[in-house]
Amino acid sequence: MRPSAIRPIEWADGNVVILDQTLLPHREEHLPCRRVEEVAEAIRSLRVRGAPLIGIAAAYGIALAAHSSGGSLQERVRSAAKLLQSTRPTARNLFWALERMLSAAEEGARPEELLGEAVAIHEEDAQTCRSIGEHGATLIPQGAGVMTICNTGSLATGGEGTALGVIRSAYAVGNSLRVLACETRPLLQGARLTMWELMRDGIPATLVTDGMAGTCMARGMADLVIAGADRIARNGDTANKIGTYSLAVLARHHGLPFYIAAPMSTVDLSLASGSEIPIEERDSDEVLAFAGAKSAPPGAAVFNPAFDVTPAELIAGIVTERGVMGAPYAESLSS
Amino acid sequence: MRPSAIRPIEWADGNVVILDQTLLPHREEHLPCRRVEEVAEAIRSLRVRGAPLIGIAAAYGIALAAHSSGGSLQERVRSAAKLLQSTRPTARNLFWALERMLSAAEEGARPEELLGEAVAIHEEDAQTCRSIGEHGATLIPQGAGVMTICNTGSLATGGEGTALGVIRSAYAVGNSLRVLACETRPLLQGARLTMWELMRDGIPATLVTDGMAGTCMARGMADLVIAGADRIARNGDTANKIGTYSLAVLARHHGLPFYIAAPMSTVDLSLASGSEIPIEERDSDEVLAFAGAKSAPPGAAVFNPAFDVTPAELIAGIVTERGVMGAPYAESLSS
Repeated sequence: MRPSAIRPIEWADGNVVILDQTLLPHREEHLPCRRVEEVAEAIRSLRVRGAPLIGIAAAYGIALAAHSSGGSLQERVRSAAKLLQSTRPTARNLFWALERMLSAAEEGARPEELLGEAVAIHEEDAQTCRSIGEHGATLIPQGAGVMTICNTGSLATGGEGTALGVIRSAYAVGNSLRVLACETRPLLQGARLTMWELMRDGIPATLVTDGMAGTCMARGMADLVIAGADRIARNGDTANKIGTYSLAVLARHHGLPFYIAAPMSTVDLSLASGSEIPIEERDSDEVLAFAGAKSAPPGAAVFNPAFDVTPAELIAGIVTERGVMGAPYAESLSS
Repeated sequence: MRPSAIRPIEWADGNVVILDQTLLPHREEHLPCRRVEEVAEAIRSLRVRGAPLIGIAAAYGIALAAHSSGGSLQERVRSAAKLLQSTRPTARNLFWALERMLSAAEEGARPEELLGEAVAIHEEDAQTCRSIGEHGATLIPQGAGVMTICNTGSLATGGEGTALGVIRSAYAVGNSLRVLACETRPLLQGARLTMWELMRDGIPATLVTDGMAGTCMARGMADLVIAGADRIARNGDTANKIGTYSLAVLARHHGLPFYIAAPMSTVDLSLASGSEIPIEERDSDEVLAFAGAKSAPPGAAVFNPAFDVTPAELIAGIVTERGVMGAPYAESLSS
């Protein structure tokens, strides 16, 4: 029996209900947020994460603020947008969704209409995932070993996922692929979330540590790499979860294609190249421990960038809802 | 004040006393082993680890067996050697030390002389580390960012270390280097052990996850990589802790030199190339958890090779006690 669909975010009874992803895979707890401040905290603390899902959560956060009281509707919406913009700097989808909500508010949308806009953003993302999945599935050879990183599935989007959506689509049409999931330190989204999703779906998957990627490629266990994205610059340079760039370099060394899968809402045409993408640095505690288990001496100096940038020249194609984009990306992404 | 020297292994009162490295950096507990079986268990469970130190531990294990009772001295030594050989397959130093002890026993060494041989192996390794450190220090440019992996210091050897011995030597002669320590999943020897050693010595060091290596290089934070070795084939192909090969590929992509530092006892001239090196695969539990905290769904499939092989063509030099060996390694290592 197919497990029930994963609903990482829902609007219910005037609340934004968030599946707390920091507790997965051990506990499934839903966190009802009544105030936009709670949504902002959930984004900041990664209870809700994944670039497309962050955008959806922010849209619902605006709807929450619109339905609250105090000040004018315009003031509430603008203040909520300001708060949400400050949560995380890298994912383009956050800003894209807020711009869409703000522009609806400026056109005079009432609270119910703003909720409708958030629901539309959510539902459109599900359709976007289906399109990404269909386009991307054609890239995966029958029986391929598919390496991926972080979580890009139902827990990261409004639908079946981006890179994981491609994997799901290929599997659904009979491709006997095998997934190699990199665990993705420091927060282990690959181990905790991607393995959980794939095991629920019965898709064959093997977990490896991030440092095993090279030897897996050298042993012929991977035929391609596919990853999601948090922000894509006009020239195709792509910010994604830390570790992605290393996989792209390793793929190039081994002659394997490296693909990105992301909705067009992740593309930021205002940035000429990846060097302009703001990269979030997170607290050193994330590296010094996991789930409370300390791994290093107290006071150890840490560098903890949450993302890295993969230059376009290492990317064999960017799968979006419009199709598989190829180089030169300045043309394919802008058209 | 300089902290007291780290003694990961000692012979005391007829015991082999092992500093239990699985508990570091949080607890310093010494485990007295009275029987060779306890030494074998300590090697297997990584309470004592690091290729040179495994060899030293095995030598002391033979001395323990020689001092015990039951059967003839020859029988006790042969049976102890057989047990110790079965503990871990990859590190050449284990077999090298056992061959040396067996050959002393075959030449009629008494128990006290076998203990003397073990002490000699231990003390020679300290001198070997000093020589490796002196030769290798010349490779590190003033103020360099030095990336390393796993632990190759006092906890891995009978002295100051191999790769970490090079770093210590360079620092001691006034090189204002900075270390980038990769945490080294799954067992976090970089985070737990290397950071502990470097912080004790006051050598500037920053901890990163293994997936951050690429972005550190792209940002110009690393000028070179230096790693230890578990077994080096005749052609220079080198088995070392999982993740090392990825660093070598990343270093090549960024035009950075990648060095190996190891004693000649790690070199296995009987193997033509790295493809002949046996690679240990360890229990999946190591990957399914992080410092005791579960990190993946129960029952997740795991691939857990403890080592990978870096081809000689990615290695800029192999630092041994004899000097810095260059390509072709079949010549430099054999001479």
